[in-house]
Amino acid sequence: MGKNRLEAFSDGVLAIVLTIMVLEMKVPHGAGLVALRGILPVFLSYVLSFVYIGIYWNNHHHMLHTTTRVDGLVFWANLHLLFWLSLFPSVTGWMGENHFAAPPSAVYGVVLFFAALAYWLLQHAIIRSQGPDSPLAMASPVLAQFPYIAVAILWLVPDRRIERTLDAGPHS
Amino acid sequence: MGKNRLEAFSDGVLAIVLTIMVLEMKVPHGAGLVALRGILPVFLSYVLSFVYIGIYWNNHHHMLHTTTRVDGLVFWANLHLLFWLSLFPSVTGWMGENHFAAPPSAVYGVVLFFAALAYWLLQHAIIRSQGPDSPLAMASPVLAQFPYIAVAILWLVPDRRIERTLDAGPHS
Amino acid sequence: MGKNRLEAFSDGVLAIVLTIMVLEMKVPHGAGLVALRGILPVFLSYVLSFVYIGIYWNNHHHMLHTTTRVDGLVFWANLHLLFWLSLFPSVTGWMGENHFAAPPSAVYGVVLFFAALAYWLLQHAIIRSQGPDSPLAMASPVLAQFPYIAVAILWLVPDRRIERTLDAGPHS
Amino acid sequence: MGKNRLEAFSDGVLAIVLTIMVLEMKVPHGAGLVALRGILPVFLSYVLSFVYIGIYWNNHHHMLHTTTRVDGLVFWANLHLLFWLSLFPSVTGWMGENHFAAPPSAVYGVVLFFAALAYWLLQHAIIRSQGPDSPLAMASPVLAQFPYIAVAILWLVPDRRIERTLDAGPHS
Repeated sequence: MGKNRLEAFSDGVLAIVLTIMVLEMKVPHGAGLVALRGILPVFLSYVLSFVYIGIYWNNHHHMLHTTTRVDGLVFWANLHLLFWLSLFPSVTGWMGENHFAAPPSAVYGVVLFFAALAYWLLQHAIIRSQGPDSPLAMASPVLAQFPYIAVAILWLVPDRRIERTLDAGPHS
Repeated sequence: MGKNRLEAFSDGVLAIVLTIMVLEMKVPHGAGLVALRGILPVFLSYVLSFVYIGIYWNNHHHMLHTTTRVDGLVFWANLHLLFWLSLFPSVTGWMGENHFAAPPSAVYGVVLFFAALAYWLLQHAIIRSQGPDSPLAMASPVLAQFPYIAVAILWLVPDRRIERTLDAGPHS
Repeated sequence: MGKNRLEAFSDGVLAIVLTIMVLEMKVPHGAGLVALRGILPVFLSYVLSFVYIGIYWNNHHHMLHTTTRVDGLVFWANLHLLFWLSLFPSVTGWMGENHFAAPPSAVYGVVLFFAALAYWLLQHAIIRSQGPDSPLAMASPVLAQFPYIAVAILWLVPDRRIERTLDAGPHS
Repeated sequence: MGKNRLEAFSDGVLAIVLTIMVLEMKVPHGAGLVALRGILPVFLSYVLSFVYIGIYWNNHHHMLHTTTRVDGLVFWANLHLLFWLSLFPSVTGWMGENHFAAPPSAVYGVVLFFAALAYWLLQHAIIRSQGPDSPLAMASPVLAQFPYIAVAILWLVPDRRIERTLDAGPHS
C-alpha cells in the first residue's frame, strides 16, 4: 500500500474531526450576549481538543515521514488510531455541555488514553514493518516516552477536575 | 479520466462517511455515567460500521492499484458504490438507536448487500475496461469469492439478530 | 494559481456536499419498517441530487482537464459554482421532507438553474483565460448546448411536478 | 515539514468549513414559500461568510506559494488561523438566525478580527522562517495593509448594524 494514500486519508479524517467538533457547539437560540455564557465551557473544551488533534496530526506526520513501506498491520493500527480520534467531537461536546463535570471528564480521559495507546501501537507496527535499522526505531527510546508522559498528564488532569467538581458539589 | 482523481475523490467520500457516522452518536444530555448506557448500542454499531468502511477502503485501494485506465462505466460504477457506502451513517445510527431491533438490522443488511453488489459491479467494470490480461482479471476467480462470502455472512448475521430479538420480545 | 489546487479544492467541496446530503435524511425514530415510509421521498430526492452532483463532478473534471492556467476570474467563477452546488443538501432535504410539493420543488429548480448558469459562466471564464485556440473553445459549440438543454429539462420537470401536485391537492 | 501537506490539510479544513456552514441553514419545516422568508437572513449571512472564506483561501494560497520551508512556528500559526476560520459556521448561523441583531453581529466581528490577526501572525511566522530575502518579506509592506484595512472595514460594518438595530428596536 502506498504511504501517500495512507497519509492523505489520515489527513482527511483529521481535518474533518477538527472541523465537525465545532458543529457540536450549538448555535445559541437567544440574540443576547447572555446566550454566549452557556457555550463558554463548550468553547474551552473545543479549544482543548483542537490543540490535542493538532499535536496528534503533527506527531503523526513526523512518524510517517520516516516510513517507506505500509503493510496490513500498519493500515489497521492507523485506522485504530483514527477511530479513537474520531470520538473527540462527541466526548468534547459532552464534557463542555456539562461544564467539565466529573463523569464526562473521565470519559474524555478514557478516549485520550486509548488514542495515546493506539498511537503507541501504530509506532510499534511501523517499527516492525521497517526493521530495526529504521530511523523511527533509533529515535524510539526518546519518542516512546511521549505517550507515557502524555497519558500520565492526562490522568492527572481529570483527577484534579474530579476533585474540584466534588468540592464544588454537583452541577445542574 | 485520471485514476488519481477517482482515487482521491473516493478517499474523500470514505473519510467523510467514516467521520460523520460519529455525528449520529448524539451527545448524551445528562452528566452521569448512566447517560452512557443509552449510547452503548450506538457505539457498538458505530464500531461495526467503522470496520466495514475500513475493509471497503482497503479493498477498493487494492482493486484500483491494478487499474491504469478509467472510463465512463468505471466512473459511474464507482459512484454507485459510494452511494451505498454513504448510507452507512444513517442506517448505522438507526440500528444502534433501536438497540439492534429486527427491522433496522434488516435494513442495515440490505444496504450492506447493495454495497457488496456495487463493489462486484465495479470490479467487472474495471476488468472490462482493462481487458482480459489485466492483473485484476487474473486475480478475479479468487477475489470474486469475497463479495459472495461477505454477503452470505451478512445475511447470516441479521438472521441471528432477528431470531434473538424475536426471542427477547419487542424493544421499546 | 495552480490548477491542481483548484481541482483538489473543488473535489473536496463536492465530496463533502455529496456526503452531507445524507445527514439531511434524518434517522427515523421508530424501530418498525413503517418508519421507513416517511423517508422514502427523502431517499428519492437524495438519489436525484446524488446523480446531479455526479454529473457536475464528471463535467467539471473534463472541463478543467483542458485548462492550463487559472486566473482570478476563473477562481471566483469556480467558487460561484461551488456556492450553488453547496445549497443542494438543504434544498434536497426540504423537497424530500415535503414529498415533492410545489414550492420546494420550484426552489430546487431555481438552485439547479443557477448552478447551470454558474457552470456556463465558469466555462466562458476558462475560455477567456486560455485564448481562442484552447481545446475548450473549439469544443464549446457542442459543450455549450449542455447547460441550455439541462436547464430546459429542469424547467420541464418541476412544471410536471407542480401540475401533478396541483391535481393531487395540497400535501400537509 | 512538507509545505504540500500543510497546504492540503488547510485546503481540507477550508473546504469543510465552507460546506458545513450550509448545515446551519436549517431546512424549513413548512412546504410553502413563506417558510423561505425565515431563512433569508440566514442565507445572506451564509453568502457573506462564503465570500470571506473564499478571500482567505485565495490569500492563503498566494502566501504559501512564496514559501519553501515550514517550521513548527508556521505549523502552529497556521493551525491558529484555521481555528478562527472553523468558528465561522457557528457565528454565521447565530447571526443569521437572529436577523443580524447587535450581539451576534458583534461576536461575528470579533471572530473576523481574530481571524485577521491570526493571518497577520502567520504571515510574520512565514517571513521569519524564510529570511528577509523571501518574496513575501519584500511584498509585505503592501500585503501588510490588507489585514488592517480588512479589520477597519469589519469594525465599521458591525457598528452600522448595531446602530440600525438600535433604531429598529429589539428583534423577536
